Amino acid sequence: MSPLPDTVTGARALARCDALGVAPYSDIPDGLFRAYLTPAYRASQEALAEWMREAGMAVRLDPAANLVGRYEGTDPQAPALLIGSHLDSVRDGGRYDGPLGIMLGVECVAALHAARRRLPFPIEVYAFGDEEGSRFPAAMLTSRAVAGIMEPASFEMADAEGTTLGSALGGEDVATYLTAARTPGATLAYLEAHIEQGPVLEADGLAVGTVTGIAAQLRYAVTVGGMAGHAGTTAMRLRRDPLAGAAAMVLAVEQLARSDNSDVVATVGAIEASPGAPNVIPGEVRFTIDVRSGVAARRNAVAEAILSRIAEIAGVRELDLAVDRIHDLPASPCDPALMDLMDQALESAGQPVRRLVSGAGHDAMNLAALCPTAMLFIRCRGGISHNPAEHVDAADVEIALRVMLGFIERLAARYA
Amino acid sequence: MSPLPDTVTGARALARCDALGVAPYSDIPDGLFRAYLTPAYRASQEALAEWMREAGMAVRLDPAANLVGRYEGTDPQAPALLIGSHLDSVRDGGRYDGPLGIMLGVECVAALHAARRRLPFPIEVYAFGDEEGSRFPAAMLTSRAVAGIMEPASFEMADAEGTTLGSALGGEDVATYLTAARTPGATLAYLEAHIEQGPVLEADGLAVGTVTGIAAQLRYAVTVGGMAGHAGTTAMRLRRDPLAGAAAMVLAVEQLARSDNSDVVATVGAIEASPGAPNVIPGEVRFTIDVRSGVAARRNAVAEAILSRIAEIAGVRELDLAVDRIHDLPASPCDPALMDLMDQALESAGQPVRRLVSGAGHDAMNLAALCPTAMLFIRCRGGISHNPAEHVDAADVEIALRVMLGFIERLAARYA
Repeated sequence: MSPLPDTVTGARALARCDALGVAPYSDIPDGLFRAYLTPAYRASQEALAEWMREAGMAVRLDPAANLVGRYEGTDPQAPALLIGSHLDSVRDGGRYDGPLGIMLGVECVAALHAARRRLPFPIEVYAFGDEEGSRFPAAMLTSRAVAGIMEPASFEMADAEGTTLGSALGGEDVATYLTAARTPGATLAYLEAHIEQGPVLEADGLAVGTVTGIAAQLRYAVTVGGMAGHAGTTAMRLRRDPLAGAAAMVLAVEQLARSDNSDVVATVGAIEASPGAPNVIPGEVRFTIDVRSGVAARRNAVAEAILSRIAEIAGVRELDLAVDRIHDLPASPCDPALMDLMDQALESAGQPVRRLVSGAGHDAMNLAALCPTAMLFIRCRGGISHNPAEHVDAADVEIALRVMLGFIERLAARYA
Repeated sequence: MSPLPDTVTGARALARCDALGVAPYSDIPDGLFRAYLTPAYRASQEALAEWMREAGMAVRLDPAANLVGRYEGTDPQAPALLIGSHLDSVRDGGRYDGPLGIMLGVECVAALHAARRRLPFPIEVYAFGDEEGSRFPAAMLTSRAVAGIMEPASFEMADAEGTTLGSALGGEDVATYLTAARTPGATLAYLEAHIEQGPVLEADGLAVGTVTGIAAQLRYAVTVGGMAGHAGTTAMRLRRDPLAGAAAMVLAVEQLARSDNSDVVATVGAIEASPGAPNVIPGEVRFTIDVRSGVAARRNAVAEAILSRIAEIAGVRELDLAVDRIHDLPASPCDPALMDLMDQALESAGQPVRRLVSGAGHDAMNLAALCPTAMLFIRCRGGISHNPAEHVDAADVEIALRVMLGFIERLAARYA
């Protein structure tokens, strides 16, 4: 491929994310909050549409209110390569979680357009709408719609103000919404670049890495029951303290995930003691356990060890224990052949090859139902995300752009 | 002393507590909530005043809105024996925590009155107003006022609706309120019977026990800071998880108090992780530590061991640690000579002698600033208190009444 023109840079992708980080592209005056179908969302789509057109794309809004830019290939009938990520944000979020993947897609096309290159397949850049689920009580509906796996019933929901999804879409009905689905077999692949939202690449001194897939995720709600009592009047020997029991369980979660020495992560993120007064021994403690791994079997083995250990702790301490499994999301592996192409693109860009699992969910996990998927992670400072302090170095974005173009080039070569 | 008349029984004291457990003596329709100076409080005072008069007492309301019944002795100038407890309750509380001690005081006087006995000293039965502090943001103000140790500034407070203490008292000022104080030296002793609110007597198969004093109490607010992160994307080896650290600290609190093998109790009653989402490694965890013992030095030794251990845990885990001491209440020992009288009264009532410390605070701790104090604990089922399930056996109340009368008899003999 010919050298990239000067105006096509990672820095521009980053600058565009920054431009969308303030009003009117944010729904709050200080910081960034851009939720699905809000004024800020619509304003951001308008700005993005203009950048897509400049990059040589034909722009449309699909029935799920995803903005889509299409860059034709040599064969208009060929299945398209989709490149995308999400335009929405969490409340008081960062500027790059989502938009950076879209802007990099636009830069890929801009580079091809500037070089007057047409590939054997069209490229469509998708800006998905509700990956974060920060407005309606569900998330990733728009990528589920595109992948053809959206449950029609999930259309029936309203935001905190009581506005239904249908009315936010100007009266659209579910049947129309579902037509956002792409025809199976008519898409070549899906490529998503995203900030890592974790500290692994930074810890290993790497700018980017090949994602092996979205981790399988288990989530439990645990309730430990003991005997409430007055903190001053209940002798230690007479206590059945569920918080002391829960503490032993929290340590077990950490210890069992650590000692697995794999990609398994296990987290207690929320804990609550009732009644929760300094002078009362709690009667009940509730906490959550989240276990993930790129390999479901590994995840399951650690989860089973955790459940068995906490049952043991409850038994020894004569505490009541109730464990509810509230989530069981399967792993969504990226396509092995596409991972190889990504690794080659990394090497060719002078980067060490590194594969890592995504512990977080992404639109790619839905697109996997439609076509082979590939993901590229970009280092973000301190692993910080969902936070205004989210930061990505322009040099890393530059590398990501070159890797993506290398990936596209290799994909095209495979179809030549 | 002559035998007790049939109508003077522990059962009646218990039945009167039950009678005050419902509207109009409760401020809530279901269950019991009687806060200082509310309509339920006033209605309960009216019922109690009638019972006091029936028992031969002259009834007055003191400037702190404590209801006081006086039963004259042979010498009206002699320092009075005060018997009391509190009329107020926590929200959704039990019926006996407080009122039982008042009703037993009334029964003591009723027994003397029925036997036409006059003692060398007057008896005054106090129904204190705000031991629980369930309306205004302070507790035990009325017994502090009576003991002459109330800080005038604490009069300046308002309840959740913005009603000031002064206006709840019909416009009374602080100077008038403070005249509730008894003259030092003009009170002989203070006697309080109270349900144990703990499981010790029940565990040892005892109906009642002599209280050695109110435990010294230390309370800390602990903040543990780590590094927040995405539960899915942050490898175990890269975490600084403050909740895992706090869990180790909670276990240390339990272990160090247990291994002291004394009356020391240590409790973590409240814990909170921020941001507190199942999919986020917390960035900060806050919890409380409450440490008590009848002997301040024992309490302090365990507290110091706890603080040193949690600092060690924070150090090893590279967590930030902030510890604020938010309470340091000295022990309030009961009078040794009065404890001996109580033990003798126990023996004489055919009860095994048992002394135990009160881990909870009581009005007696304030009265100790005015005169020697004595307390008698009564077994309550399962140690349960501050709960509608609070229960006391009538047989135990009967024993308590006989012990109190024996105590009074011995006190009178000492002054004869």
